Amino acid sequence: MVSRIHAEVLGQGACYENLRVLCKDIGARLSGSPEADAAILWGAKVLEAVGPAEVRMQPVVVPHWERGAPEQAWMRVDGGEAEPLRIAALGGSVGTEGDLEAEVAVFRDFEALDSLGEDGLDGRIAFFNRPMDPLMINAGSAYGGAYEQRSRGAVEAADHGGVAALVRSLTHALDTFPHTGGLRYSDEVEQLPAAAVSTVDARRIARLVEAGHEVRVGMNMNCVLYEDKAQANVIAEWTGSEFPDRYIVVGGHLDSWDIGEGAHDDGAGIVQSIEVLRTLHALGYAPRHTLRIVLFINEENGNNGGKTYAQRARERGEWHVAAVESDAGGDAPRGYSIDASDLGTEAVRAWRDGLAEYGVGDMRRGGAGVDIGPLKKEMPAGKRPLMVGLRPNSQRYFDYHHSDRDIFENVHERELKLGAAALTSMVYLLDQLDYESLD
Amino acid sequence: MVSRIHAEVLGQGACYENLRVLCKDIGARLSGSPEADAAILWGAKVLEAVGPAEVRMQPVVVPHWERGAPEQAWMRVDGGEAEPLRIAALGGSVGTEGDLEAEVAVFRDFEALDSLGEDGLDGRIAFFNRPMDPLMINAGSAYGGAYEQRSRGAVEAADHGGVAALVRSLTHALDTFPHTGGLRYSDEVEQLPAAAVSTVDARRIARLVEAGHEVRVGMNMNCVLYEDKAQANVIAEWTGSEFPDRYIVVGGHLDSWDIGEGAHDDGAGIVQSIEVLRTLHALGYAPRHTLRIVLFINEENGNNGGKTYAQRARERGEWHVAAVESDAGGDAPRGYSIDASDLGTEAVRAWRDGLAEYGVGDMRRGGAGVDIGPLKKEMPAGKRPLMVGLRPNSQRYFDYHHSDRDIFENVHERELKLGAAALTSMVYLLDQLDYESLD
Repeated sequence: MVSRIHAEVLGQGACYENLRVLCKDIGARLSGSPEADAAILWGAKVLEAVGPAEVRMQPVVVPHWERGAPEQAWMRVDGGEAEPLRIAALGGSVGTEGDLEAEVAVFRDFEALDSLGEDGLDGRIAFFNRPMDPLMINAGSAYGGAYEQRSRGAVEAADHGGVAALVRSLTHALDTFPHTGGLRYSDEVEQLPAAAVSTVDARRIARLVEAGHEVRVGMNMNCVLYEDKAQANVIAEWTGSEFPDRYIVVGGHLDSWDIGEGAHDDGAGIVQSIEVLRTLHALGYAPRHTLRIVLFINEENGNNGGKTYAQRARERGEWHVAAVESDAGGDAPRGYSIDASDLGTEAVRAWRDGLAEYGVGDMRRGGAGVDIGPLKKEMPAGKRPLMVGLRPNSQRYFDYHHSDRDIFENVHERELKLGAAALTSMVYLLDQLDYESLD
Repeated sequence: MVSRIHAEVLGQGACYENLRVLCKDIGARLSGSPEADAAILWGAKVLEAVGPAEVRMQPVVVPHWERGAPEQAWMRVDGGEAEPLRIAALGGSVGTEGDLEAEVAVFRDFEALDSLGEDGLDGRIAFFNRPMDPLMINAGSAYGGAYEQRSRGAVEAADHGGVAALVRSLTHALDTFPHTGGLRYSDEVEQLPAAAVSTVDARRIARLVEAGHEVRVGMNMNCVLYEDKAQANVIAEWTGSEFPDRYIVVGGHLDSWDIGEGAHDDGAGIVQSIEVLRTLHALGYAPRHTLRIVLFINEENGNNGGKTYAQRARERGEWHVAAVESDAGGDAPRGYSIDASDLGTEAVRAWRDGLAEYGVGDMRRGGAGVDIGPLKKEMPAGKRPLMVGLRPNSQRYFDYHHSDRDIFENVHERELKLGAAALTSMVYLLDQLDYESLD
């Protein structure tokens, strides 16, 4: 069956063409935007068309933040002329209310900032410049180690008397693209504007400051947080032949950041999840458990899609035996990340040698996905789903992630399809398990 | 040690910068060309600089074929106007001696041609149009299944009364670049000119012919085969502390085709092999066996570098305990291909779980490399080296292979470095084995 799945996806797969439509006809689709509405309708239409599942919308309340008119920025070295600087406001940031210009202080981490004392910034801009650790093999782990600069930088800057936060883009690539991403504010300190600069600009600013120059950065950002909006998860439900009241979920997230096209993050996971349904149906398969393909909304700035899905499942007492996610990009799949009990983990690892023939024998414990994450929290012990994440090659993902480079052209057709086949194979194998024996 | 190797290569690795110089300052470097001479001198200089090995040239006689003035081609549908067509003469092809124009007959395989009978082509051009099998998971295997069209097409065309051979480029990519590569002639039939067309053009021509149109293709190729030339393998020898008269070879090939820059094929393998020496030396390692880094010449059109190396080794009675090659591109490494006895294979597979932490746990039996291949043939039973090939992700390699797209910009810095670290780790581990117990 795994062989037939691969032949079907490689030979007849629709996921690459679906991704082209999602990226080129709809494009970036941040929660709350009209483009996200369009993506929801598109997803429902495609799911209806490819298989026998019943498609419905699950209402989700999402934040509605907008970048507004393009942000402007400049830098001034030793009081000289202003030179243009490319920045991207972090998602959720407040605007600057006109021009803001201040001196930059560079920090490797929050401890360095703390060491300056409570008002250490004294009206300056905190610039967090720690690169993703190049020595880590997995780029996702390196991202995890640098991530707090973006998510917590604005709060830390406010806490030390700063006026704004700048953050080095979270990517191994040395290039000129700023990479956005979410931040969190705290109720206890002022909300400061925060933005990312490219790694090339980050290096330049840090070198100038290290060499004793005064660097001032100016920013003009027009971000606005509007009222929450009603959008939806799209759910295609394919009733199981043996266990109609036991659920296997597979999905990714339909929303993206508002720059680029959300091709790898997470257009790839969306079209691969749709491909699971198309492929199993095309092969005449009848799932034993009820299969739900879920196109989650709002992973990027709130995860309200994942949270809402899990809350409804708990309220209805649904037993989710397994949950699978693809949200690590469309590059060549290498294996799976398993978040499960020891017994569940062993059940999945037993397929390792067979799956290695298809290039996906790399199995290790780890997080399975942000959208399906709340299912684990919401479900009572003994009813927690066996969770699996598709694990593609991580090396290029952050080159594109949250930037203008995350476009359709940077997704490789065969690698995307191999990922879809790997995802479908995992769903098929999980559908073959006996979950009573795993508890 | 494997961890230290990865940290050294990812943190201090010189391979990416070395590849930039090889591709941008020297460029394409077909055997017999002045650029190949320059590459040989460059390789020797870099090997001298990075480690304690003694560097010497091993003379190798190589063919000297040149494409000559750029080939011109055109096509004419149903006797209409000539439209330009992009072709690449296959390496080793004869020229056309002026313009050649004839009708095209399309074949999926040699059997279809045979079915037309001995003079079935009757003055036409045989066009071999079988795509690489998209259903195969490994792109290298799909290449292997389509390869004979390029290597034997000209002979088969001559054998059936044809005037030339055209071949669909050997790539999964649907694009407009012709991919060259070697052909073989036979003494028994006329040497016909042969060229590759892009996959987009191949599809167009085949569709026109299928629809009943007459397609004539014109070619003007100026290829010349000159006298053989003396070039060299570059060998850096680092004497072993315990077993100075037992050798471990690691290498790739310095020559490339004459289009593109030979970045993946096999600039990557060359700079990774150099990195083995640099890294082990930087870490203060003293090899137990004598380590030879070999930059082979003439893999692409003759393999005289590999053959000469093996013959000299046999003549001197050298015991090569192991041989390692990187010649499958610079994309993210996934594991190793093992060509060895059962005992040798088991010894390498025992490292699988440890190496999986570095992303290179995919180990299977298979060919290890063309350059080191002759070592296996030349050595007596019991003295055949344990052979290992680095196995990178194969999905993108043929997008670039032998075409204008095989340039430095299409190599990913971290993936190249991870490959260098994987190669170095394998050489280190092989140096730790006790080869007497493996026989």
